[in-house]
Amino acid sequence: MDILVDIATTIVAQMQKPTLAFLLGGMMLAALGSKLEVPDPVYKFIVILLLLKVGLGAGISIREADFVALMVPALGAALIGILIVFLGGITLARRRGVAPMDGMATAGLFGAVSASTLAAGMAMLDSEGIFYEGFIGALYPFMDVAALVTAIILARMSAARKAAPAAAGGTATLTVGGGPGFNGDLIKGILVDTLRSPAISALLLGIMIGLFARPESVYESFYEPLFRGLLSILMLIMGMEAWSRLSELRKVAHAYVLYGITAPIIHGLLGFAVGLAAHHLTGFSGGGVVLLAVMAASSSDISGPPTMRGALPEANPSAYVGTSTGLGTPVAILSIPLFIALAEQFIGF
Amino acid sequence: MDILVDIATTIVAQMQKPTLAFLLGGMMLAALGSKLEVPDPVYKFIVILLLLKVGLGAGISIREADFVALMVPALGAALIGILIVFLGGITLARRRGVAPMDGMATAGLFGAVSASTLAAGMAMLDSEGIFYEGFIGALYPFMDVAALVTAIILARMSAARKAAPAAAGGTATLTVGGGPGFNGDLIKGILVDTLRSPAISALLLGIMIGLFARPESVYESFYEPLFRGLLSILMLIMGMEAWSRLSELRKVAHAYVLYGITAPIIHGLLGFAVGLAAHHLTGFSGGGVVLLAVMAASSSDISGPPTMRGALPEANPSAYVGTSTGLGTPVAILSIPLFIALAEQFIGF
Amino acid sequence: MDILVDIATTIVAQMQKPTLAFLLGGMMLAALGSKLEVPDPVYKFIVILLLLKVGLGAGISIREADFVALMVPALGAALIGILIVFLGGITLARRRGVAPMDGMATAGLFGAVSASTLAAGMAMLDSEGIFYEGFIGALYPFMDVAALVTAIILARMSAARKAAPAAAGGTATLTVGGGPGFNGDLIKGILVDTLRSPAISALLLGIMIGLFARPESVYESFYEPLFRGLLSILMLIMGMEAWSRLSELRKVAHAYVLYGITAPIIHGLLGFAVGLAAHHLTGFSGGGVVLLAVMAASSSDISGPPTMRGALPEANPSAYVGTSTGLGTPVAILSIPLFIALAEQFIGF
Repeated sequence: MDILVDIATTIVAQMQKPTLAFLLGGMMLAALGSKLEVPDPVYKFIVILLLLKVGLGAGISIREADFVALMVPALGAALIGILIVFLGGITLARRRGVAPMDGMATAGLFGAVSASTLAAGMAMLDSEGIFYEGFIGALYPFMDVAALVTAIILARMSAARKAAPAAAGGTATLTVGGGPGFNGDLIKGILVDTLRSPAISALLLGIMIGLFARPESVYESFYEPLFRGLLSILMLIMGMEAWSRLSELRKVAHAYVLYGITAPIIHGLLGFAVGLAAHHLTGFSGGGVVLLAVMAASSSDISGPPTMRGALPEANPSAYVGTSTGLGTPVAILSIPLFIALAEQFIGF
Repeated sequence: MDILVDIATTIVAQMQKPTLAFLLGGMMLAALGSKLEVPDPVYKFIVILLLLKVGLGAGISIREADFVALMVPALGAALIGILIVFLGGITLARRRGVAPMDGMATAGLFGAVSASTLAAGMAMLDSEGIFYEGFIGALYPFMDVAALVTAIILARMSAARKAAPAAAGGTATLTVGGGPGFNGDLIKGILVDTLRSPAISALLLGIMIGLFARPESVYESFYEPLFRGLLSILMLIMGMEAWSRLSELRKVAHAYVLYGITAPIIHGLLGFAVGLAAHHLTGFSGGGVVLLAVMAASSSDISGPPTMRGALPEANPSAYVGTSTGLGTPVAILSIPLFIALAEQFIGF
Repeated sequence: MDILVDIATTIVAQMQKPTLAFLLGGMMLAALGSKLEVPDPVYKFIVILLLLKVGLGAGISIREADFVALMVPALGAALIGILIVFLGGITLARRRGVAPMDGMATAGLFGAVSASTLAAGMAMLDSEGIFYEGFIGALYPFMDVAALVTAIILARMSAARKAAPAAAGGTATLTVGGGPGFNGDLIKGILVDTLRSPAISALLLGIMIGLFARPESVYESFYEPLFRGLLSILMLIMGMEAWSRLSELRKVAHAYVLYGITAPIIHGLLGFAVGLAAHHLTGFSGGGVVLLAVMAASSSDISGPPTMRGALPEANPSAYVGTSTGLGTPVAILSIPLFIALAEQFIGF
């Protein structure tokens, strides 16, 4: 019983957080037929600001870390992010009735990282006096960006593959590549388009400026303080859109619920396994292994939604934000003690 | 003589405050033919942010108060707000030459509450060591929202009534309701339209989130700090519009001046009477009675202008902002000692 | 060798500052074909906010200074600003191949003042215990606004003069004024148009409100904190535009490089000479003379770019922002010790 109360408490607390409260508020407004509308130019600007901020923060934290010590765990973190997205691509996104683009966007969010879940994990380790490496915070952008970019490229490729036969049937094309699903030019085109898209451009620009310049003053006085507020507005917009597209999900809701509940634990165990390997190879600490598992288990509630909304506007936010923020994040937070227990068992502190 | 100097000083200090200074600045720009223009999408977004903030603040302060102890005085406060608007509807809005929509918008602002005038009243009581109930601050949104919504509905009803006979004359309608000025469907339609309008939607959404979620972090880091600044921009926009519509008021300026000077005192006495009744019935404190009178006397300089601008775009801001901010607020501040003296006489501290 | 290392270090540090980093980032995005775009209504609003902030700050600092003591040095500062622009008008803007509008915009920025260069000068004097007058900070807006407005008017006049003969040749006009280059109505028209333009309107409105009202609360809670961030966005926009127009400068780049390196020193010496005269006439302090020279040497990286972008949209930002921020500012900072040495020689502290 206690565990059920715990879960309910966590879910209610999550729903009271500004992020989800504004999302639910937007859905309520749409349901009641409100005429409130955030003008499109403002919405576009908000997405740019949010992704610049996410990029700047990532760039600054990578720059401040010891780059050499960071290399191996960073590659591991990026790998986990990519694996999670591919895993989602062959499970959720292939489920009958699930729109591939919605499925990939959801997998992208589950591959990305929630900074607040990570912070919760750090706080738990701190309170029990368990050591972890100082550069852990700098691993976060690697997993995050790798997962988001992978998901966007896979979603775009699946959309292009779907569109291609139709086009071929219509106009008898002669330029078919090496085979179905493998076409170098197509992949290159999608990659370039993704990198040039406003959302990813802003994210990468932020990372570059964070890495090579000294934007701390403007980051702390402007991007950081505005962030939560602008995110609340974005959630409002996404809530209104989510409501109007909720009916699309009626027949496949169970697929998202199943994914939202099981994926964080599976991803966390994947992260734990990679961390355990690093522990045996390089002496990566037990606390570090726990935090890598927490990162893998967490799903993005900050960087993910604006990125997906900007880069995959066709994807249904009811699917990816609902599953990630409504289920993934509470489950990930509740599973932190599990990873601590596993580390105690297999590694010891 | 001293009182005249006092009045002049208060008016000058009021005009130097950012709110009025930007309003006057906007009028000056328009008078000089400036091409400065705040783009429409930005203006719409500013109104949404301002009303979300007003709603969030109201919702949080109601949530933090003891809801049971609050119920009776809150109903009293809402009643005062509604009474003031109806009073304005049968005096100012009926004056020959005063456009009913301008009159109702002005009455709505005089029914709404100025947080800064209320704070001035609290500061005076504090400095004289006079006790008042802790939940007084939470009464403010009840009077405020009740007055604004009542004014908007009455204004819309008067516009519909005006339009209806014209339409009837033109097309020989058969669907006339029970009688002139009373038509259930019409009222329901206006009520629904008002609640769905962007301005009121944002206000009510803010109240709901403030009441049922925990938006304090985003409120304090974003909505609260941006508020005064965005209000200054709104005042600039309204000043430019006010100048271009000032000539409409030439013939009825005396009606607004008379209302702006007498209404705060009459409203304050009304608030005092309701408070006095509550004192005898439930032991409401003398300090509380004073503050209820101050709230009733004050006219909104914060929540009111953006609400009216968003919900009644046809109303002339020269009329309602000019009368409320230019006359109502100084008179209300100057009348605080009167209410303290009355409370000392009739209740004692 | 040391001086070269110093210069390189200063240039690198300058390029890492948010202002230049976002400018370079915008150029990089444009070079890579990014589709990132800041919507036009948002851009227009950003320019209004930036110039309101610059104006408010200038107005407040003038109000807080002793107006009488300020009069003579303020006129001197304005004179220096105007002289620098005229000097640029007969040197850089007349160079073969340099577009007169680009040349005047660049001269305007070099006449305007960099608050951060001025602050660097003050810090150097403070650290050596050298006295300077307290009102120096209030001289800054006089030089700044005088230079910017002069540059805009001269640029508009040169454009009108260029357009006029073409029009005359085409339609055989009879309304030619007193002589070439001197036409009272034309100048008046340009002056009125400049003052009514959105950028200059916002700047002057800010100055008026700063001077005559008390906008400190909203200035500190809104305009000041948002400033650096919004400037970073403007720099991003200008960087993207600058890249697309860089090729225009290929043939005249050497003219801008020569101007960017020599002008700060010549302007500083001009400022020093005016200061020296004031020292002998009114006892203006040696430290004050140094700071007047630093102000004259500095070129605007804050108030200038948004003003020019708003008031002279045809001018090429690659020219004026590149020359001013990329060369002028580092050279001005490096020349501060020169002015201190000159003051020690000719005045003594």
